[in-house]
Amino acid sequence: MNTFGRIFRITIFGESHGPAIGVIIDGVPVGIKLSEADFLSDLARRKPSVKGTTSRVEDDIPELLSGVFNEFTTGAPIGVMFRNKNVKSEDYEEFAKHPRPGHADFVALKKFGGYNDNRGGGHFSGRLTLALVAAGVIAKKIVEPIKIKASVLEVGGIKDFEKVVEEAVLLNDSVGGIVECTANGVPVGLGEPFFDSVESTISHLAFSIPSIKGIEFGAGFSAAKMKGSEHNDLIVDTNGKTGTNHVGGVVGGITNGNPLQFRVAVKPTSSIGKAQQTVNLESGKVEELVIPGRHDACIALRMPVILEAITAIVLADLMAVNKTY
Amino acid sequence: MNTFGRIFRITIFGESHGPAIGVIIDGVPVGIKLSEADFLSDLARRKPSVKGTTSRVEDDIPELLSGVFNEFTTGAPIGVMFRNKNVKSEDYEEFAKHPRPGHADFVALKKFGGYNDNRGGGHFSGRLTLALVAAGVIAKKIVEPIKIKASVLEVGGIKDFEKVVEEAVLLNDSVGGIVECTANGVPVGLGEPFFDSVESTISHLAFSIPSIKGIEFGAGFSAAKMKGSEHNDLIVDTNGKTGTNHVGGVVGGITNGNPLQFRVAVKPTSSIGKAQQTVNLESGKVEELVIPGRHDACIALRMPVILEAITAIVLADLMAVNKTY
Amino acid sequence: MNTFGRIFRITIFGESHGPAIGVIIDGVPVGIKLSEADFLSDLARRKPSVKGTTSRVEDDIPELLSGVFNEFTTGAPIGVMFRNKNVKSEDYEEFAKHPRPGHADFVALKKFGGYNDNRGGGHFSGRLTLALVAAGVIAKKIVEPIKIKASVLEVGGIKDFEKVVEEAVLLNDSVGGIVECTANGVPVGLGEPFFDSVESTISHLAFSIPSIKGIEFGAGFSAAKMKGSEHNDLIVDTNGKTGTNHVGGVVGGITNGNPLQFRVAVKPTSSIGKAQQTVNLESGKVEELVIPGRHDACIALRMPVILEAITAIVLADLMAVNKTY
Amino acid sequence: MNTFGRIFRITIFGESHGPAIGVIIDGVPVGIKLSEADFLSDLARRKPSVKGTTSRVEDDIPELLSGVFNEFTTGAPIGVMFRNKNVKSEDYEEFAKHPRPGHADFVALKKFGGYNDNRGGGHFSGRLTLALVAAGVIAKKIVEPIKIKASVLEVGGIKDFEKVVEEAVLLNDSVGGIVECTANGVPVGLGEPFFDSVESTISHLAFSIPSIKGIEFGAGFSAAKMKGSEHNDLIVDTNGKTGTNHVGGVVGGITNGNPLQFRVAVKPTSSIGKAQQTVNLESGKVEELVIPGRHDACIALRMPVILEAITAIVLADLMAVNKTY
Repeated sequence: MNTFGRIFRITIFGESHGPAIGVIIDGVPVGIKLSEADFLSDLARRKPSVKGTTSRVEDDIPELLSGVFNEFTTGAPIGVMFRNKNVKSEDYEEFAKHPRPGHADFVALKKFGGYNDNRGGGHFSGRLTLALVAAGVIAKKIVEPIKIKASVLEVGGIKDFEKVVEEAVLLNDSVGGIVECTANGVPVGLGEPFFDSVESTISHLAFSIPSIKGIEFGAGFSAAKMKGSEHNDLIVDTNGKTGTNHVGGVVGGITNGNPLQFRVAVKPTSSIGKAQQTVNLESGKVEELVIPGRHDACIALRMPVILEAITAIVLADLMAVNKTY
Repeated sequence: MNTFGRIFRITIFGESHGPAIGVIIDGVPVGIKLSEADFLSDLARRKPSVKGTTSRVEDDIPELLSGVFNEFTTGAPIGVMFRNKNVKSEDYEEFAKHPRPGHADFVALKKFGGYNDNRGGGHFSGRLTLALVAAGVIAKKIVEPIKIKASVLEVGGIKDFEKVVEEAVLLNDSVGGIVECTANGVPVGLGEPFFDSVESTISHLAFSIPSIKGIEFGAGFSAAKMKGSEHNDLIVDTNGKTGTNHVGGVVGGITNGNPLQFRVAVKPTSSIGKAQQTVNLESGKVEELVIPGRHDACIALRMPVILEAITAIVLADLMAVNKTY
Repeated sequence: MNTFGRIFRITIFGESHGPAIGVIIDGVPVGIKLSEADFLSDLARRKPSVKGTTSRVEDDIPELLSGVFNEFTTGAPIGVMFRNKNVKSEDYEEFAKHPRPGHADFVALKKFGGYNDNRGGGHFSGRLTLALVAAGVIAKKIVEPIKIKASVLEVGGIKDFEKVVEEAVLLNDSVGGIVECTANGVPVGLGEPFFDSVESTISHLAFSIPSIKGIEFGAGFSAAKMKGSEHNDLIVDTNGKTGTNHVGGVVGGITNGNPLQFRVAVKPTSSIGKAQQTVNLESGKVEELVIPGRHDACIALRMPVILEAITAIVLADLMAVNKTY
Repeated sequence: MNTFGRIFRITIFGESHGPAIGVIIDGVPVGIKLSEADFLSDLARRKPSVKGTTSRVEDDIPELLSGVFNEFTTGAPIGVMFRNKNVKSEDYEEFAKHPRPGHADFVALKKFGGYNDNRGGGHFSGRLTLALVAAGVIAKKIVEPIKIKASVLEVGGIKDFEKVVEEAVLLNDSVGGIVECTANGVPVGLGEPFFDSVESTISHLAFSIPSIKGIEFGAGFSAAKMKGSEHNDLIVDTNGKTGTNHVGGVVGGITNGNPLQFRVAVKPTSSIGKAQQTVNLESGKVEELVIPGRHDACIALRMPVILEAITAIVLADLMAVNKTY
């Protein structure tokens, strides 16, 4: 459902083409300096400004509804809201009849009946990540001085990927990618096994981001090919520093003081301009569908700031819980 | 922490060398036939019977403590307990001073002070997966007729892997592997976005299993190299059947009626007989450590029944929540 | 914290004098007809229109932010927001120094440091019940045809209480009261013992309403004076109808099909115009304090619609969970 | 359901006549001295030793299953189990046909079908409070130096109540009572409004105790008859000490440093030896029922240690959460 976290806890709402998108952030410590200006930098990084991202541009100006007084957090839940403005919804009725391949049209129809708001993907839209980024701005302040930084490693299998994206745009196609996130300065001891390991909580939130289909920590899938004597990170000092970091900074589900590091696989955007086949739910026949509208050719490009946000959100919650010992 | 699930909810307890390991299973529907014999088959599959698994053998006989009356579930929480019997604990004090590489010794010391029970890995031990398998037995009954089946795909990068394991045993080393799990007959509509997508909930539970460092659904990391026109699964009938299954049966975080499929990366067992270097926490010097005792050379071999269990547990919970609409 | 419920789940935000108050309502079934007009009747009942209630009047016009499409619920979380408009905040700095007796000024100062927004009571304000009433409007639709009705039983110990309130107003004083809530048509079987009994969940939510200091179900405190042979409700038909209803419709924490009935004790409003003594937190001396501003002389008068709301909210959640069996 | 708490979190299981009753206690701080002997004193206070309590006597010897190593808590969940031994179950089939007045027989039949284990009340039995008392023993250690003390105020409306109980025993009847609980030394600032006020969380747990039908904090229902100028507790020093304690130590849902005080109404035991009428669920006719077996004539007498336990449990959790600021 739409609430996540034990102490630092977020609740999101909104649809792509509804009146607004927002997030309620509970469990924020008191006395953190916060104003609407603090959100602008990360929100700008999420915006579709580069080639290969959608032409829908929203101003994405946050409104602080609660929980802040005289520019400091009060301990009460913080509401942040964004109005949707640049909305074009004429196309979506078509998709209730011809479900788009790779999209939630079909499953939403089955799960929510005819009542689902499928305009722009509705509540399934990548636009909801706006709420995650907003919560992440606050979480980053809480986890200071931890530094979280994500970047795109490759697109379509290529590390120097600008051309790959351009090509996808030209072909009315899309392309996937891999994004890596690293947090430096994480203290030893975060994570609450058995069930709330660092990997469990980060992956839980990561897979709520539309388009993510895989995640690995440290050596990840490469570890499956290794021997224990190769994979084990040798501890070299009493702070727990290790020579290598094959575990990505997490042992036994708990941070070990080395950089927390993970990578996600982002699938190619499902909405493509190219003609595709799909079933006509009325006739039962397979027909050709052309999806009009504005799409990202490579959603991976917008992912770094979102991954940073979810990492900060998880760490803020784990830090809160860790204080209770 | 140690409770997972919204309606079908499990709470686990126990340590590797403590008196007992167990699980309390809440939210079980009434009237399911259940007796201790039902557990034996899956518990046997988890046992270290093949080459490359530990020589510690427990009888693992489950005791039903509650929630069952006249061999049917009553709706009250079900307690299942296993006594630990074959326990050898002499070695573990050493590891408080010389933390084992790849193990939780160091982080547990930092997080829990000197109070952690590190005998046999304590509460971090893979032995806790016994509780998951027990809960899975009940969950599998709930989700019938869904069929869940997992198997080892490769070990040490090799698909025909018997020799790789034997070699690791001979070398006092260990080796990782990849395990795949598939659920057939899953209905359309399970999964509760935004935060409780199928991928989110399965990965949450998967990463609570010791040694798992990566997970991918469907094409997973391969999707990152694909174009949208290649990756999109075309819908071929009004039941939502797709020609390919690159999404692993999950779209928008919700099951689409095609087989649910994911793979996990299992790291090589951290405990190896080979000498390794680690820090002496008293002197601060790096010293050689030899870990005695009984270990799995390839923990991936014991993983299939555990993955089946967590898949059933997640599906049982998602099915319960899905009924509330 | 600020989220309540397992499936039908509400999250509230806002302060008395902040930009807005609102609630996010998750787990709402799809296909319920809903528009802003549906809220007006209950919101009007909460308004301070009668003698003895505050002169602060807000228009309390709800804005639906999400979860509704073409006037039907979609299954996505519903956001409802109210702007605060009629705000006068000049007086509140005084109370950080001279904490008002019976108010949260002192505890909020200690818990949240100087960062608490104490204007109008901030997040502790009775104005937050606006969010509960809004959620209750939706919950009432879900639990149809259950009929929930609350009314004031007595004020200041008097059943015909108009004069008591007038007197309190004249004296710059306030007065408490008792309010009763009854739900007819409740099906047998709601409630989830051991911990989530009907009484547990209703009382949990009831005590979140500012000013409530007691609750009793059925005979309640009178039951403590009774014999078992007097108190036991005899079952008279196979539907479970009982001759008396001393248990208030709840046995073993579960509804028994008879009317669900409880009463709450509402303390007199803490804010009174009369001079009172309190400590000066700077000097440590006890000094006289006169609280200016606009207050309810009898907050119990506004309570019926709020009690109905919380009853509907709890029943909506228990009905959802009950479906999972 | 059967789990309660955010950080200090308990999960209970068991039935009156099943193999065992127990509790898993999560979120216990590390390094607390704990052995089975620590439980004996409170468990003895819960036992039916005085006149007017049941003749079923169990030894109630706790077994620590996990979470304790070398007599100190480890941070892992603590399992405590009690075997049921003195079980007589022949009578209970009768009650599936003739539901006992005041008992859960009827609602359990409707909610759980024929599968409910109604022997001795099953999971609804007062015997489950054994698990609460066990968890309370640990919680009391956590909240030290807070002192929690409960006592019976009156039985059947009489403060000197020994004779009232004897009379009820003679008449094969039962009688209700009022029990008060006070916690001294509670720090200022516990409680997490809006929803998790001190009153909300204590009442939630109190109403999970079988037989409790009312709760009031401080002046409680008397407050409903008071004026604000009478009820307001004047603050007399900078520690927040108040002259009176009409609020029972809780303002705005948060502890104010004065004694936390509440009272509960305990209904007379439903099981009485006297003949009673009830419906025959097969014939639909009202018939006479005589309940054989062993019962408490006044369950209120066993309540003090149970109330202390739930108070300690709630405070332990609120203290944990309060540390996160």
